[in-house]
Amino acid sequence: MDAVNHQFRLAARPVGLPKPSDWEYAQEPVREPDAGEVVVKIEYISLDPAMRGWMNDSRSYIPPVGIGEVMRAFAAGEVVASNDPDVAPGEHVTGLLGVQEYAVVSGKGVFKADTGLAPLPVHLGTLGMPGVTAYFGLLDIGRPQPGETVLVSGAAGAVGGLVGQIAKLKDARVVGIAGGAQKCGHLLEQLGFDAVIDYKAQDLDGALSEQCPDGIDVYFDNVGGEILDAALAHLARHARVVICGAISQYNSGAVRGPSNYLSLLVNHASMTGFVMSDYLDRYLEAVREMAGWLAAGELVSREDIAHGLESFPEVLLRLFSGENTGKLVLEL
Amino acid sequence: MDAVNHQFRLAARPVGLPKPSDWEYAQEPVREPDAGEVVVKIEYISLDPAMRGWMNDSRSYIPPVGIGEVMRAFAAGEVVASNDPDVAPGEHVTGLLGVQEYAVVSGKGVFKADTGLAPLPVHLGTLGMPGVTAYFGLLDIGRPQPGETVLVSGAAGAVGGLVGQIAKLKDARVVGIAGGAQKCGHLLEQLGFDAVIDYKAQDLDGALSEQCPDGIDVYFDNVGGEILDAALAHLARHARVVICGAISQYNSGAVRGPSNYLSLLVNHASMTGFVMSDYLDRYLEAVREMAGWLAAGELVSREDIAHGLESFPEVLLRLFSGENTGKLVLEL
Repeated sequence: MDAVNHQFRLAARPVGLPKPSDWEYAQEPVREPDAGEVVVKIEYISLDPAMRGWMNDSRSYIPPVGIGEVMRAFAAGEVVASNDPDVAPGEHVTGLLGVQEYAVVSGKGVFKADTGLAPLPVHLGTLGMPGVTAYFGLLDIGRPQPGETVLVSGAAGAVGGLVGQIAKLKDARVVGIAGGAQKCGHLLEQLGFDAVIDYKAQDLDGALSEQCPDGIDVYFDNVGGEILDAALAHLARHARVVICGAISQYNSGAVRGPSNYLSLLVNHASMTGFVMSDYLDRYLEAVREMAGWLAAGELVSREDIAHGLESFPEVLLRLFSGENTGKLVLEL
Repeated sequence: MDAVNHQFRLAARPVGLPKPSDWEYAQEPVREPDAGEVVVKIEYISLDPAMRGWMNDSRSYIPPVGIGEVMRAFAAGEVVASNDPDVAPGEHVTGLLGVQEYAVVSGKGVFKADTGLAPLPVHLGTLGMPGVTAYFGLLDIGRPQPGETVLVSGAAGAVGGLVGQIAKLKDARVVGIAGGAQKCGHLLEQLGFDAVIDYKAQDLDGALSEQCPDGIDVYFDNVGGEILDAALAHLARHARVVICGAISQYNSGAVRGPSNYLSLLVNHASMTGFVMSDYLDRYLEAVREMAGWLAAGELVSREDIAHGLESFPEVLLRLFSGENTGKLVLEL
């Protein structure tokens, strides 16, 4: 094919926050698709906290990105060439397409994105990995009951904002933790949260006592660290703690374990972890219900769109500095 | 009544290991039972790790022992006077009778102990609180399936030894962690464990790789600290971690949180806590089945019996130095 593919490859394993020298900005020609393959011209790249974990050389749910390999990322784009009879040029798809302009991948490895249903970036957020993560983490593990108190951290992030909204659809009382007045206002005014805690401005323990006076029934944790510990100290009996992520810990050398974990013991509570890929076989079940809520106006989808492939290294860091509100996406 | 009751009262809240000055050795006359009360002459006092928690002034599943109050403890003895028509003098009972020679308590607060079924100390162990703890923690929370690998720490303790034996009765493969060759030999030879790890002599991580090559399906944790962290690093997918206690942490100033807790995330695993009193309404269900196993010779009950009320402060410390094998009981 007569096109050049610019891409970010992992040059070194980061210590702490990824720095410019951890990346190699490379280019190569776009090759022809083999039998069963498609060529996708990428339009949007999803930036997700999980990407930081994929850069570490440690045993996890998928192998790490190898040094010299194109950085792994969910992305969305248009099929521009196809050697798979089930996928036609002109169709929009999402998948693990990498941080690059073109991806040549198996047609079986992509999901078709109905852009009549929602704009393409929404298929990387509410109707993509973060949406499916929020849906199953909350409903399958957290199992909120009407009237229960659901606390979610990273509440202004892609997953957290959806968790809170789904919990509201299930008639729970929803308290969100986020950093800064702007994010907290967004949660209350746009997303319909019942209460918010600004962890940058408020004393966590006091705020939790005030906002969760009967204790926390479901805590959906995206951040780990001191916020997890504070939440553990306020669990209700039979509470369910959902471990979805620990963004405060991904760039620290040593993970801080939750020293209040014995709160699980005195409250007969549980702490359960998961990753979205645990639910791959039920992916469409979540997407269908989320799409229905979106169409009915019962769910607000918020994307935070940055621009330009070359800005990838710095835009990625916004996840860890807490700058983004909603799904962070890079538009090419 | 014409008897003197010697007792240990809590004189001060311990910092770290309880020291002699944290206790007051007191005496008082034994009072007559009011309506509904019984007088129990205590024969055996149960020494349990949970007692350390009861000495702290912190929010927990039961209020702390007050300064100046008789130390709380399970105990067993003979009813010597009764003002409760349902309990007759001469009957043996167990209950929260305290660290003393005589207890005057409500007849509704004691369980009758059938000494024809098993000697009285067994009613404080296998047929008492540790037995019920092991039974529900393993079967209700751990839920081992045939062929699964069950790891238990504090395996030579009262609860741990029963957990391993019950797991064997459920056709699991059982690995015990204990300190020292003598305890490890006891687990293999008397209790029928499949494998043991001597945490004082072996590298935990290497030993877990060797003894749990397919990962740990159920980890029953009595100890916390570095053993919990090591076990978390070896979880199988969908593992269940049962938090029963954390004896390594009870006398440390700050609890060490499990820094490997994100292993729950990558393995879709859970960590659930409980205390025996969560199952009080099903107490007899456990005791009946355990008694059946005992009578059939399918369960070995091991008691470690010390002597003399006055030795209580020093005998209690054996729990924390890891000196006892089986249920630690003080015979008066």
